[in-house]
Amino acid sequence: MSRDNWNRWGAEDERGALNHIDAAAVKRAAELVVSGRVVSLAQPLSARTPFPPHRAGMQHFMGRSGGDYAAGARRPGGFQFAEDTLLMPAHFGTHIDALCHAWYDDQLYNGFPGAGTRGTTGAARCGIETMGPIATRGVLLDIVAVRGGPLADGAAIGVADLERAAKAAGGEPGKGDAVLIRTGMAERGIVSFETEPGLDLAAALWLAEREVAVVGADNFAVEVLPFAAGSVFPVHQRLIRDFGIPLLEGLVLQPLAEAGRGTFLFAASPLPVAGGTGSPISPMAIL
Amino acid sequence: MSRDNWNRWGAEDERGALNHIDAAAVKRAAELVVSGRVVSLAQPLSARTPFPPHRAGMQHFMGRSGGDYAAGARRPGGFQFAEDTLLMPAHFGTHIDALCHAWYDDQLYNGFPGAGTRGTTGAARCGIETMGPIATRGVLLDIVAVRGGPLADGAAIGVADLERAAKAAGGEPGKGDAVLIRTGMAERGIVSFETEPGLDLAAALWLAEREVAVVGADNFAVEVLPFAAGSVFPVHQRLIRDFGIPLLEGLVLQPLAEAGRGTFLFAASPLPVAGGTGSPISPMAIL
Amino acid sequence: MSRDNWNRWGAEDERGALNHIDAAAVKRAAELVVSGRVVSLAQPLSARTPFPPHRAGMQHFMGRSGGDYAAGARRPGGFQFAEDTLLMPAHFGTHIDALCHAWYDDQLYNGFPGAGTRGTTGAARCGIETMGPIATRGVLLDIVAVRGGPLADGAAIGVADLERAAKAAGGEPGKGDAVLIRTGMAERGIVSFETEPGLDLAAALWLAEREVAVVGADNFAVEVLPFAAGSVFPVHQRLIRDFGIPLLEGLVLQPLAEAGRGTFLFAASPLPVAGGTGSPISPMAIL
Amino acid sequence: MSRDNWNRWGAEDERGALNHIDAAAVKRAAELVVSGRVVSLAQPLSARTPFPPHRAGMQHFMGRSGGDYAAGARRPGGFQFAEDTLLMPAHFGTHIDALCHAWYDDQLYNGFPGAGTRGTTGAARCGIETMGPIATRGVLLDIVAVRGGPLADGAAIGVADLERAAKAAGGEPGKGDAVLIRTGMAERGIVSFETEPGLDLAAALWLAEREVAVVGADNFAVEVLPFAAGSVFPVHQRLIRDFGIPLLEGLVLQPLAEAGRGTFLFAASPLPVAGGTGSPISPMAIL
Repeated sequence: MSRDNWNRWGAEDERGALNHIDAAAVKRAAELVVSGRVVSLAQPLSARTPFPPHRAGMQHFMGRSGGDYAAGARRPGGFQFAEDTLLMPAHFGTHIDALCHAWYDDQLYNGFPGAGTRGTTGAARCGIETMGPIATRGVLLDIVAVRGGPLADGAAIGVADLERAAKAAGGEPGKGDAVLIRTGMAERGIVSFETEPGLDLAAALWLAEREVAVVGADNFAVEVLPFAAGSVFPVHQRLIRDFGIPLLEGLVLQPLAEAGRGTFLFAASPLPVAGGTGSPISPMAIL
Repeated sequence: MSRDNWNRWGAEDERGALNHIDAAAVKRAAELVVSGRVVSLAQPLSARTPFPPHRAGMQHFMGRSGGDYAAGARRPGGFQFAEDTLLMPAHFGTHIDALCHAWYDDQLYNGFPGAGTRGTTGAARCGIETMGPIATRGVLLDIVAVRGGPLADGAAIGVADLERAAKAAGGEPGKGDAVLIRTGMAERGIVSFETEPGLDLAAALWLAEREVAVVGADNFAVEVLPFAAGSVFPVHQRLIRDFGIPLLEGLVLQPLAEAGRGTFLFAASPLPVAGGTGSPISPMAIL
Repeated sequence: MSRDNWNRWGAEDERGALNHIDAAAVKRAAELVVSGRVVSLAQPLSARTPFPPHRAGMQHFMGRSGGDYAAGARRPGGFQFAEDTLLMPAHFGTHIDALCHAWYDDQLYNGFPGAGTRGTTGAARCGIETMGPIATRGVLLDIVAVRGGPLADGAAIGVADLERAAKAAGGEPGKGDAVLIRTGMAERGIVSFETEPGLDLAAALWLAEREVAVVGADNFAVEVLPFAAGSVFPVHQRLIRDFGIPLLEGLVLQPLAEAGRGTFLFAASPLPVAGGTGSPISPMAIL
Repeated sequence: MSRDNWNRWGAEDERGALNHIDAAAVKRAAELVVSGRVVSLAQPLSARTPFPPHRAGMQHFMGRSGGDYAAGARRPGGFQFAEDTLLMPAHFGTHIDALCHAWYDDQLYNGFPGAGTRGTTGAARCGIETMGPIATRGVLLDIVAVRGGPLADGAAIGVADLERAAKAAGGEPGKGDAVLIRTGMAERGIVSFETEPGLDLAAALWLAEREVAVVGADNFAVEVLPFAAGSVFPVHQRLIRDFGIPLLEGLVLQPLAEAGRGTFLFAASPLPVAGGTGSPISPMAIL
């Protein structure tokens, strides 16, 4: 049982590696803004957004719409409006995993009991509402550029890949960074949620040891699928539960890569759903 | 029929006043980061989050949870996880209105037909997915400070209030700004969605004429309720439809006010729901 | 620990007292049809249907509607249509409780483990899909008639009430019957889910011992609220878990009472939701 | 424009051909009960229930479950319970179409305006809540038996098929009947919602002219797919809109066919959703 960052920020801490982002880190990240260009890193959300088979897709229910007025609805004071309702898994499209999302040995990050997350109440500890907004230095590790093209399904990204990509980025991943891994999977079109390119465990641990705050990727699970023999979501187990590092999944990274900037101000903010295990999110890079 | 900003950015434009935010404005906003402190401006989301009677509340459905493992669920490879599904109105908690949300005379911002927003398809034009991430200068207009306490229900905020608050903020609202109006309503507890303190129409137009990009408040509708006689949501009608200014509602502004900063880097990013009329949002101020 | 009907129909039985309804009972019930009049016993379902505070209300989402065509939607081959989506608690409006709905000492009816009902899978045993359609003799026990008016909140219905009402109905409740208890609560308007007229435990056991198949009422919980001191839902505990008798709640019984028939063919059929704990239902009396 | 049954039961009628079922018909149907055996005609409902691509599947959200207690939830007074929430299209699994579901030329059955069905309000006329419970004679027309096996996709069932099947059933379809057509599609497994065996228009009109009350089948649309050239859902258009005959779709008919009874008491009752366009339903045949 590993407990790498447990108790590092106190027995009650629920924010894990986000604690690596201090005010000075935010300020340094803001100084990276050179051009003022803003790049979205989020997938569009609709019934066509891909999702794994054990989840359901998004449903977008319109309530009042222009159709109501065309059909004769009143418009008091001239006012017309349209409204809608959203149904989606918390882990849908571009999203972030709360620290209560994955664990092992019945203990979450920092030793909180897994049994504290229940059907009626959601997560008692490490829910997405404890995460808060994230602003820090972003580092794009463009493995597509390093490898010369989008990675194949099942291709493992190792430490050497990260090191080469970091050199190209002009920024070693370090304390408090949001590290974004481009595998090219999203650009190829997602074919399967059972096999995908992604981090191997050693690469993930290399990032954790560098004290990064968040690890994201343009794939479904950050880590390579299928897993190494005998393991199930080993990167989730180690990064989320042992190091307290939230994972960002389903990023759109091609436009950022094309912008030619390896480091930038990264800003993202989950919906603070009480007891939630994650949140759809719409991150931005400010260049 | 007013069409203040129609065609200003071309016949196909769907972003309205967000076009006032150019790269230079973003860069200037990033330069406002002094301390690196990050303040969340979002309400927690749960079944207790207030909502108006014509909408429904949030439902948070847990799927797999710690309860499943306690009850004997398998944990292949040791892996345990929890997941959930979110159901909520797009206009819930802290949220932003897309430009397709409100209109009159059957035409949206820039003349797009209201009938293009339909039950089956959502908004054909000016949907929330066209908005993109927002990073710009934020200006807090703290009317609570100006008036000496939270405003009463029905209290109209006029141009003079804004001018006084702007002076206190140390920043005249101007081109491309995200202007955040603190009424104190949220701090009092929301009692009613039929009466609240908020902008009067003249104050709203004063902001629009200064070419701000976004107007937000810590109340339900930005504008004062009840409306002036004979009008229904006049600020929505004019700002959203005529000027193309999105409204940010349900902000939490007390912590920002207490931080003592009138201008800052504001960052917020809606979920890009295809054809959606708005989005729950979790904005931040970077001080 | 009581296990009144456990193993009565075998160790694998999931239908409980519904086993009391044999083909001969159905045939005898059909012979009660005299006039051929059909009376609905179901509440209308809408956002206005009352529900207890720990549940959420119904949401009825229209998809395609006449509004779409008014707004210009195509009608290939002339065809026009409207569709909708329903969201509701399984225990909403007029509904029936599956035998997995309530239990104690970690064991359901017939000794199945309570831990077999989980967030990811629903009920492994005694789910609503095991219930099947119900056709049997219905017996209306009109306590409103016996008492001379709708019962007050908190009024307990005892064995003597049932006996008097049975005499008036012209039919002693017996083996395989669906017994419907009219308290008058629905007619008064539901004021509270914390206090209501309903069966006391002795009356419930009196019915169970007569081997009835189903017990229903026009209130929220069949049983009287508040509970007798020291007990919580004692009638649910004993009838559902020990006797395997499903409860029918939220019935509309005034029209049936006014029809003047104490016994009739009762027909109702839950939606066979795999692993569900209950179902909204729309029962009928055929007179 | 055909208006076959319009005004037949008055200008305000919303029940259409269900008016053919009078009390005498119900009484005669009850007399068909010989053995007392009850056969369910409903599909199980789960995430695996097939649905056409323009709809979404069912979602079954557990709230409190046995997992909560295993994880330590309190059980006041010993009481334990499980609850859930259902989300599904109204036209899902075995279901019935309300008369507001399909129309043409902007008019529903009996001339009500199609524009009366709107996103905010649902159907103003002919909603599923106006249908009420259905008890009448059921007639099984077993085309599988007539043809010697399940029909192929695209196979049209004509008048001659119905006549042969009626002879085998020992009951000519007539006034007020619920006619159930067995194509064998469900037994083959549903492969496509674009091609299926079903009624041709002449066969549908043959039933309508015999004044049946309801037409059902074990396929997706009652009628044959693909449609005859130049038409779209012609049977829906004529039966629902012109004759006011509701359609029952997704029936399970093999067990009924194996029971060897051509006529029986049919009972089914939609959920009375205010303004709904249909309802999942769980019909029974009482033999």
